[in-house]
Amino acid sequence: RKRENILKDEPYAFEHWQRQRSFRRYTDPFDCWVVVLNVFWPVTFVVLAAVGVGLYKKLGQQRHGFPYFRENSNAVEYGLPFTTTSFAIALLLVFRTNESYRRWWDARRNVGRLCTGMRNIVRQGIAWFPTEQNALLQALQRWAIVLPHMMLFHVCEGHDMDCILKPLLLPNELDWIKEQDRPTFGVTACLTRIVQTAKITNEQQQSMDLEIKGGLSEFGASDDILRQPLPVAYTRHTSRFLIIWLLCLPVAIWQVYEWATPVIAGAVAFFLLGIEHIGIMIEEPFSILPIDKIASRLRADIEEMIENNQKAKRLVMEC
Amino acid sequence: RKRENILKDEPYAFEHWQRQRSFRRYTDPFDCWVVVLNVFWPVTFVVLAAVGVGLYKKLGQQRHGFPYFRENSNAVEYGLPFTTTSFAIALLLVFRTNESYRRWWDARRNVGRLCTGMRNIVRQGIAWFPTEQNALLQALQRWAIVLPHMMLFHVCEGHDMDCILKPLLLPNELDWIKEQDRPTFGVTACLTRIVQTAKITNEQQQSMDLEIKGGLSEFGASDDILRQPLPVAYTRHTSRFLIIWLLCLPVAIWQVYEWATPVIAGAVAFFLLGIEHIGIMIEEPFSILPIDKIASRLRADIEEMIENNQKAKRLVMEC
Amino acid sequence: RKRENILKDEPYAFEHWQRQRSFRRYTDPFDCWVVVLNVFWPVTFVVLAAVGVGLYKKLGQQRHGFPYFRENSNAVEYGLPFTTTSFAIALLLVFRTNESYRRWWDARRNVGRLCTGMRNIVRQGIAWFPTEQNALLQALQRWAIVLPHMMLFHVCEGHDMDCILKPLLLPNELDWIKEQDRPTFGVTACLTRIVQTAKITNEQQQSMDLEIKGGLSEFGASDDILRQPLPVAYTRHTSRFLIIWLLCLPVAIWQVYEWATPVIAGAVAFFLLGIEHIGIMIEEPFSILPIDKIASRLRADIEEMIENNQKAKRLVMEC
Amino acid sequence: RKRENILKDEPYAFEHWQRQRSFRRYTDPFDCWVVVLNVFWPVTFVVLAAVGVGLYKKLGQQRHGFPYFRENSNAVEYGLPFTTTSFAIALLLVFRTNESYRRWWDARRNVGRLCTGMRNIVRQGIAWFPTEQNALLQALQRWAIVLPHMMLFHVCEGHDMDCILKPLLLPNELDWIKEQDRPTFGVTACLTRIVQTAKITNEQQQSMDLEIKGGLSEFGASDDILRQPLPVAYTRHTSRFLIIWLLCLPVAIWQVYEWATPVIAGAVAFFLLGIEHIGIMIEEPFSILPIDKIASRLRADIEEMIENNQKAKRLVMEC
Amino acid sequence: RKRENILKDEPYAFEHWQRQRSFRRYTDPFDCWVVVLNVFWPVTFVVLAAVGVGLYKKLGQQRHGFPYFRENSNAVEYGLPFTTTSFAIALLLVFRTNESYRRWWDARRNVGRLCTGMRNIVRQGIAWFPTEQNALLQALQRWAIVLPHMMLFHVCEGHDMDCILKPLLLPNELDWIKEQDRPTFGVTACLTRIVQTAKITNEQQQSMDLEIKGGLSEFGASDDILRQPLPVAYTRHTSRFLIIWLLCLPVAIWQVYEWATPVIAGAVAFFLLGIEHIGIMIEEPFSILPIDKIASRLRADIEEMIENNQKAKRLVMEC
Repeated sequence: RKRENILKDEPYAFEHWQRQRSFRRYTDPFDCWVVVLNVFWPVTFVVLAAVGVGLYKKLGQQRHGFPYFRENSNAVEYGLPFTTTSFAIALLLVFRTNESYRRWWDARRNVGRLCTGMRNIVRQGIAWFPTEQNALLQALQRWAIVLPHMMLFHVCEGHDMDCILKPLLLPNELDWIKEQDRPTFGVTACLTRIVQTAKITNEQQQSMDLEIKGGLSEFGASDDILRQPLPVAYTRHTSRFLIIWLLCLPVAIWQVYEWATPVIAGAVAFFLLGIEHIGIMIEEPFSILPIDKIASRLRADIEEMIENNQKAKRLVMEC
Repeated sequence: RKRENILKDEPYAFEHWQRQRSFRRYTDPFDCWVVVLNVFWPVTFVVLAAVGVGLYKKLGQQRHGFPYFRENSNAVEYGLPFTTTSFAIALLLVFRTNESYRRWWDARRNVGRLCTGMRNIVRQGIAWFPTEQNALLQALQRWAIVLPHMMLFHVCEGHDMDCILKPLLLPNELDWIKEQDRPTFGVTACLTRIVQTAKITNEQQQSMDLEIKGGLSEFGASDDILRQPLPVAYTRHTSRFLIIWLLCLPVAIWQVYEWATPVIAGAVAFFLLGIEHIGIMIEEPFSILPIDKIASRLRADIEEMIENNQKAKRLVMEC
Repeated sequence: RKRENILKDEPYAFEHWQRQRSFRRYTDPFDCWVVVLNVFWPVTFVVLAAVGVGLYKKLGQQRHGFPYFRENSNAVEYGLPFTTTSFAIALLLVFRTNESYRRWWDARRNVGRLCTGMRNIVRQGIAWFPTEQNALLQALQRWAIVLPHMMLFHVCEGHDMDCILKPLLLPNELDWIKEQDRPTFGVTACLTRIVQTAKITNEQQQSMDLEIKGGLSEFGASDDILRQPLPVAYTRHTSRFLIIWLLCLPVAIWQVYEWATPVIAGAVAFFLLGIEHIGIMIEEPFSILPIDKIASRLRADIEEMIENNQKAKRLVMEC
Repeated sequence: RKRENILKDEPYAFEHWQRQRSFRRYTDPFDCWVVVLNVFWPVTFVVLAAVGVGLYKKLGQQRHGFPYFRENSNAVEYGLPFTTTSFAIALLLVFRTNESYRRWWDARRNVGRLCTGMRNIVRQGIAWFPTEQNALLQALQRWAIVLPHMMLFHVCEGHDMDCILKPLLLPNELDWIKEQDRPTFGVTACLTRIVQTAKITNEQQQSMDLEIKGGLSEFGASDDILRQPLPVAYTRHTSRFLIIWLLCLPVAIWQVYEWATPVIAGAVAFFLLGIEHIGIMIEEPFSILPIDKIASRLRADIEEMIENNQKAKRLVMEC
Repeated sequence: RKRENILKDEPYAFEHWQRQRSFRRYTDPFDCWVVVLNVFWPVTFVVLAAVGVGLYKKLGQQRHGFPYFRENSNAVEYGLPFTTTSFAIALLLVFRTNESYRRWWDARRNVGRLCTGMRNIVRQGIAWFPTEQNALLQALQRWAIVLPHMMLFHVCEGHDMDCILKPLLLPNELDWIKEQDRPTFGVTACLTRIVQTAKITNEQQQSMDLEIKGGLSEFGASDDILRQPLPVAYTRHTSRFLIIWLLCLPVAIWQVYEWATPVIAGAVAFFLLGIEHIGIMIEEPFSILPIDKIASRLRADIEEMIENNQKAKRLVMEC
């Protein structure tokens, strides 16, 4: 499976939280490999640079004509350019990751709010649609379940529409949706028509239309996140700054740590590049969010709502 | 009782604030133990590592064939990899804790807003429902009190529905709620039906329906917080970075502090791991928020509202 | 007067800003004492610890059997545990203070928005209530002025309701409010009834009801801020980390500064503990916000609005 | 002109942005003087302190009985209290400036949103008011243009109402506004009456009333920013911490830089105090925002809207 | 083409994300040149300063009467003013960039929300306009497509209105728009008239009018971002602080790195000035955002919506 999917998180339940809170989080080997796999090449590159510095110092400097490093100054002096820029690099790295995180959480909330909107429109339809328009209510439920699934085709790639929507729609509806370029607007058009056709008050119509509008907003916001990365020059400048900083680090620490330097430089590189890599991965959040699981959950919710309906009506009527 | 409950905060009153503001907050032993209990094992591990470094230096290096640490370079040189990465680690740690804190506060405000919404729907019902629909008004009050209690079953675990809802609902209502998979939607269905059945204007109906929609939104937002942890790779990478950083620290400071090193390393580990642990704990906020107390308070508020009603009406009628 | 009140700020006018912008802000002795008074004991404690370190070094180390500090390593080496954790401590401290500041500003805006809402409901009432319902309009004005004053009883302590509300309400209204447990809901109940009784369109009723709902939301949000402190374990862990860090600092700097160490340690402690203390104080914002002054200002605004009314009507009618 | 006005920014056009992007921004002498003028005294004070440290070291220490600084320890040891607190000071400074910046941007957006609201109410009035109520429409335009200008009297000082409003209002309207204590509420009262008098649907009336309510909110929010400074104790504690830190810095660096110390201390002081001063200046944003220019622009916009009107109507009618 | 356009980002598709995630992001030479071109002069200046320090040390100090640098103190002592201010400079730099980033993202979202609003108004028009008003519906579509294109003339410069709007409008409409000073208000005036002329319910009219109001808000918010830069004194103070800091850095590190100093100073300058430059560039976001591409995409969306219409109606009618 594709590399980015390794970072894909499952929806958490109570037992996941229990596990996360135990001290095993410090040692769990699994996700270590996730990060290792992704930053393998740049880390290797940093380790090789450290080995190169070592070889140069041990072999090159003995020959004539090679410039040499002053052995008698201490490592802290050599480290001055690193200590004065380590703030800038740490801040850039963490702020960039944070900005990616905010995109990721915005995307997650877009999907969550879309589901809440669909739950709400179905709740309203169940209560407000007259009994004789039951077929219309069923259509409302079908399309309300389908809309969050459209996220899988609108902002993710590699999902098979036929396979996912078959259990949710009637055959002629499915055929129609499949032949469209932007099926999301087909779904909202159907929902709009259903709300307009229903025999409800003007105010109820507006209230339900608001949810469809909300759905369009969530798709628009998700689209903005997908199409617009963080300014690319900013992303690349940070990456380049970091990799050059890491490649030069061995020069400063070699005379203290000698042949332990490649190990130390590799460890520092692994951690800093790991942070940067995670930031890059969550910047495009839709391929790592469990959108399919969230949409399935919505389906179960809406089906439960329909079952509740009759009994709730009777309970209230008794008053 | 379970470990996470130790962190559970009570709702604060003025005397708690008074106590927090006194300088006793620096010395209060109680909550020290809370954190100690939770980070005991990793801190012990760091202390043992420090002891191990000491034994190696005192015993191992005297024998033939063991690599040794250059005693003549100073500790600041050894510390270079630590001083240049301590920014990154502190930033990661504090930002992560902050992000957890925001989830925690969002969750708290979700519960608070849900209660405000229910207070509002009851206020409107009291004023707008005609006198002959008094039974309906009482049903509205019952279900409005119940809805925030559903948070205990929707996003927390280990609460007994029978015990909590018995004093709040009629027996047939309680039976119906108990047999459902997602009782939250049962409660909102009842509230929707009540608002629809009431003899009020279309505009009043929409205004009350808005509160029910708001309730669904708060549950949706809480659900998103519960189901979606911070990206797990990010959490684990931070934890791993921190624990390795702490395990290596004794190497750099041993030659200055000698046998005080285990104490110092233990103290630093206790504080940094404590921050990280608090961040992990408040990331899933529902098991540490006093939701039951907040819901009880709402119940008292709504009961007070009903008592106010008649007199308020008379006061206004006199004008 | 109580200690927290020393931090209470007055509403600023132009001359206060002028003064704040002058360079006298660096030297003004007044508020120095505010902070000094509050962190006196912990700072003293740090100074005594510094003196203790000095005495131990001068006296204790000369006797047999006392462990000693290696004099020949330099202070920077001793400082390593401090320099590597000073980031964490500064970040924790400033972020915590920032989080408190956000609570403080949220609370201030809650009060401000509540006043804006009441200004708006009175503006609408003046324009929309028919002339024959003038007594009702006066009641609206009375209760709209009273609602922000309820903040003083809802989230502050130590205010005398009788004294504050007497000039604002009729005697029978005051008696009724005083006998309630949660008088805030009494006030909103009256406002709701007034809006419902007025002869205005359904749309106007909803628009005015929205302001009452907004008022309830501001009270709910303020309540959340009062009842829910920042996670207590987080607050205490930060305080404890800071005090221990400060108590150990003299060990590292004694050999450089000798008997100046108590002064320097005291100064550093004063500043860092001062930040921490301010953070603690503004975490519960209601006892330091000038809510009474804000509510008085609203009263003057609303009285001015009533005077404007007739003339504005005539000006528009001329068109 | 007054000192704070020196910081007042003009609205930017494309050529300003072009200039800002060129590398001349590093050298432009103008605004250097702005900051220099404002922090002149405290910087001078720091320079004098540095000179004082120098004189003491060169002259005082040679005489008997003066305590002396240990010359043989290195400057880095002396610098320990500075390096461990420089984080705290930088964080405090930048966060404080950021918080001020947020107030400044909020204030700017309040003004911007107020103008947008007025543009919108005029757009609606043009389309919805019947032709026979043309005089009323003109009154709407007059008052909608005046409302943003009220910001100049509500939250700024030193503006002459007569001079600014004369070209915008009829003489009797101007007289009435001038005699009021809080003329802002006079303007909103007129707008409310105009909307109520217009022959439009109930829904249209509510939609236009919403903009007037929005205007009141922007004034309320601006008022909150003007009346409520950042907690004064926080501001002063930061200023005091900074100035003492700067006054002590020469002690640590004298032995390295000798008579260059006053220059270096002055430069560091200039930059850090400059940041602090800018933070103080933008904390009260209304005296440095170009509110008059923004309001003039709105006037031109609204006059353009009126011209567009007839043609737009004809274009649509042709369909 | 103009320099700022080099930073202009394309809308991202899945293959761009794939490329960004690969480790080639560390090495991609293209955007390196973007930044190099823009900071070429100040970096050169820093390198020359470093060379100047070197020449002075090698040549100048040997002659009589030139002040000299104490060679026997170590570089870390010289670096003290740099290490204690590097926090401040890194924080200022990164926070400033972050604030610029927020303006950039706000601007992007303004454009995105405007498009969503136009999608929504067309969706509503398609469903609600009666069949006989088909010409009006077509006008609605035309103007809804045009509105986001107005961003190109309202907040960008150098776009040819004739060329861009010709394929979107009828000739007489285009002529009218072209002769206006503020064509944006012409477009909203037409949309307002269309919604008012349509035979729809009052509630539907208000719901569609809300989108036009939303459009005005997005233009107002974009205008605020364009006209109001970050406080100029703040921007310039940061730039000046940074350039002086960089020009002085060689003094501290010369004795360690000798003739490698110009290279190191140049690299540090390139990275820090690069961050500052990117911050300056994204502060005015409209010239680097791909607004034309976003508006074209909206056009395709709306054309697809019209095609969907008939079939959606039939599908729903079958129920």
